[in-house]
Amino acid sequence: MPLLGLLPRRAWAALLSQLLRPPCASCTGAVRCQSQGTRDLSPQHMVVREKILDLVISCFKRHGAKGMDTPAFELKETLTEKYGEDSGLMYDLKDQGGELLSLRYDLTVPFARYLAMNKVKKMKRYHVGKVWRRESPSIVQGRYREFCQCDFDIAGQFDPMIPDAECLKIMCEILSGLQLGDFLIKVNDRRIVDGMFAACGVPESKFRAICSSIDKLDKMAWKDVRHEMVAKKGLAPEVADRIGDYVQCHGGVSLVEQMFQDPRLSQNKQALEGLEDLKLLFEYLNLFGIAEKISFDLSLARGLDYYTGVIYEAVLLQTPTQAGEEPLNVGSVAAGGRYDGLVGMFDPKGHKVPCVGLSIGVERIFYIVEQRMKTKGEKVRTTETQVFVATPQKNFLQERLKLITELWDAGIKAEMLYKNNPKLLTQLHYCESTGIPLVVIIGEQELKEGIIKIRSVASREEVAIKRENLVAEIQKRLSES
Amino acid sequence: MPLLGLLPRRAWAALLSQLLRPPCASCTGAVRCQSQGTRDLSPQHMVVREKILDLVISCFKRHGAKGMDTPAFELKETLTEKYGEDSGLMYDLKDQGGELLSLRYDLTVPFARYLAMNKVKKMKRYHVGKVWRRESPSIVQGRYREFCQCDFDIAGQFDPMIPDAECLKIMCEILSGLQLGDFLIKVNDRRIVDGMFAACGVPESKFRAICSSIDKLDKMAWKDVRHEMVAKKGLAPEVADRIGDYVQCHGGVSLVEQMFQDPRLSQNKQALEGLEDLKLLFEYLNLFGIAEKISFDLSLARGLDYYTGVIYEAVLLQTPTQAGEEPLNVGSVAAGGRYDGLVGMFDPKGHKVPCVGLSIGVERIFYIVEQRMKTKGEKVRTTETQVFVATPQKNFLQERLKLITELWDAGIKAEMLYKNNPKLLTQLHYCESTGIPLVVIIGEQELKEGIIKIRSVASREEVAIKRENLVAEIQKRLSES
Repeated sequence: MPLLGLLPRRAWAALLSQLLRPPCASCTGAVRCQSQGTRDLSPQHMVVREKILDLVISCFKRHGAKGMDTPAFELKETLTEKYGEDSGLMYDLKDQGGELLSLRYDLTVPFARYLAMNKVKKMKRYHVGKVWRRESPSIVQGRYREFCQCDFDIAGQFDPMIPDAECLKIMCEILSGLQLGDFLIKVNDRRIVDGMFAACGVPESKFRAICSSIDKLDKMAWKDVRHEMVAKKGLAPEVADRIGDYVQCHGGVSLVEQMFQDPRLSQNKQALEGLEDLKLLFEYLNLFGIAEKISFDLSLARGLDYYTGVIYEAVLLQTPTQAGEEPLNVGSVAAGGRYDGLVGMFDPKGHKVPCVGLSIGVERIFYIVEQRMKTKGEKVRTTETQVFVATPQKNFLQERLKLITELWDAGIKAEMLYKNNPKLLTQLHYCESTGIPLVVIIGEQELKEGIIKIRSVASREEVAIKRENLVAEIQKRLSES
Repeated sequence: MPLLGLLPRRAWAALLSQLLRPPCASCTGAVRCQSQGTRDLSPQHMVVREKILDLVISCFKRHGAKGMDTPAFELKETLTEKYGEDSGLMYDLKDQGGELLSLRYDLTVPFARYLAMNKVKKMKRYHVGKVWRRESPSIVQGRYREFCQCDFDIAGQFDPMIPDAECLKIMCEILSGLQLGDFLIKVNDRRIVDGMFAACGVPESKFRAICSSIDKLDKMAWKDVRHEMVAKKGLAPEVADRIGDYVQCHGGVSLVEQMFQDPRLSQNKQALEGLEDLKLLFEYLNLFGIAEKISFDLSLARGLDYYTGVIYEAVLLQTPTQAGEEPLNVGSVAAGGRYDGLVGMFDPKGHKVPCVGLSIGVERIFYIVEQRMKTKGEKVRTTETQVFVATPQKNFLQERLKLITELWDAGIKAEMLYKNNPKLLTQLHYCESTGIPLVVIIGEQELKEGIIKIRSVASREEVAIKRENLVAEIQKRLSES
């Protein structure tokens, strides 16, 4: 397992910001970036997306999750004070009468609101949907303001670390399944983070603010994070330096053992609880066969306010390098953690429902897969059409319409040109350029003899078959290919 | 073909408003209506939705459409003055700096904006996504403010009526495929509507306003529509009465022929063009084998401003009546038309791209299918789990975790309880209540003998197999069932 010091993390950050800059019109063909920081998804994008989402959703279903959906907007008060320092970046709806509303910022808070509102005490659900964050394009280069998240969460009171371990297993299955190359999942615990802060002498009132600074370590150098903590957040320099010693620590289960011996940390009750849980977690990760993918990393803090226990974040190390392909280093592609207090915030009596979950950052994955396909020169078909209906003669529109109806009604994916008298060459070119494998041809002679010609676009071979056998013959050929 | 007079249409309207009232918490179990007029979709809803959307999307793909997506919000100016009288109902985003934005109101205007922005002259695409309309719940009872649309559109300059006829064919395929019972598609042409207005003496400045009133005929009685036109919109009573004569006309292609002879209408150039096109359309609908599903209906106006040619709207006549099931009459479930001017509104030089398309009103369809399932007492599984990993003994968590890992890694959908020592009965009850068909059981004896028991939940039969054959045996059983 590679040990990740601060230096490579900084190197990633630079590459990351370069890689994740929004592709502009010139590099993606049919897509224009809109000035409001969002973008259209062209058919090419959609094909890649559909494949990736299919894999992600089938993994969620493999683990017994149910589907769910919530509205794009929530009451503004539902979203307030859940996200820490980031929450200034919410999209509010205009006050047009009625309640104040905001676009959802993630899928976790709406899930917690749903559980509390419906008094659901136990649920394993996935949710794939868009979220909106009004990030300034100049600050966070390369992020869109509308993006898709894929979340999986387990709500309910269970024996410790079993659902938490399953979340990490799911992240591993998805990242392996997508063949994105080597990856690593950094793990920590909010109680260890807080215990570390206490042990270093951070005043409790500054815990969340300092946590937010630490969270930037994957994008900023330690020097700059330290500066932010001292100059902007008023932390004593020696306290910052003590934190600096801890956040360089990362390793496997042996680091957990080592931290039990740490004189300062081991005196903190919260930190000890976190370390106990991590120890148990690693035991389960071993049984799942994924322990070597997981690194206990004291620099991991996660910026969101609602985490209360285990937290994790998956990073890609590099994509598989092929001949002529640049090795890519990219940042976080999945993350999550335990949030035992969030549901209680929405319950009138404060009843808690412990939860743990994960979110796949599919936008980055889309981009990586698209770049890889581009490098390899892979072409994607944006339609699934199986058969094209053509004619070499004029005045055959009626026959083509009758033919294509037969195909559609038999469930065959079919197209024709919307012209009364198209040229045969135009029709065949259309098939070649869009990747349609079969052409059925009807003309005067075919009509007279009661036959149809079937042409393979790839081999250019043509055979004549009886008109009445058309659907059966096409279905036979499609099932063979 | 049933002829639809004004009376049954009024009767529908009453039933419709009753049927489409939002289901409340007490009738749908896990779902609460939120006060802002939106709702969460429970796992039960999601299963029904997924099945319906799969059918709709596979039809769109069968006709060669590509997928596409656009952002949830657009520049406010993009959406302004496209929707007629309804456009007061747009959701605006708060001005937080930057451009003024609004949530999309349909999927058609964003598509037109996309075509113009990317200079696309030809495209067949589908788009499934949410749209938002700030309708007053007291006025339009039973509509949610967030809902899903499924759109299919053909953009490009083609020979007349071929793509238009395909849109109607698609509507028929989807409505038949969903087995929603008998349906009818009303067809008209904006040029005939305008020609009719001109022939009746409506001043041109009032065309769109009167069109909007006529559009309400499926929800309001003629008497009330007439009152709106005369009292609110200042139409002369005798002009309104002339319109009243026309809007009672509906029928097949023979009505098209009849209208060619209408002394007032046949003198209007626009109306004549519309009638010519409808005649050609019916020819193609005959070839597609769907002419008997289509009714030329002069009361059809469609409220949106952007239509320029053929317009259509599908209504369900009633769902199939089973023993003990009430016959249901419901309103419009799909609609669309030709809009040749919309793309040009977004092109700096006004270059036009003719378009025709349709939108499936899936929310109503979801509701009908859910009601039907409820009446029949059909149960839906909300998970797809195939195998449950159980143990009859204490201290078998480790073995269960190892076993379930094998299953997951082989792509088998598997669950277990997140407890160290669950009771066997609890585990078997879980399988029965969630519909999991198979249980694999490991205990002390099985571990000692290197075997696993497989239990069928339905028959309660158990067989012992060698541990190493587990995955193969499960896969065999799943492929057989």
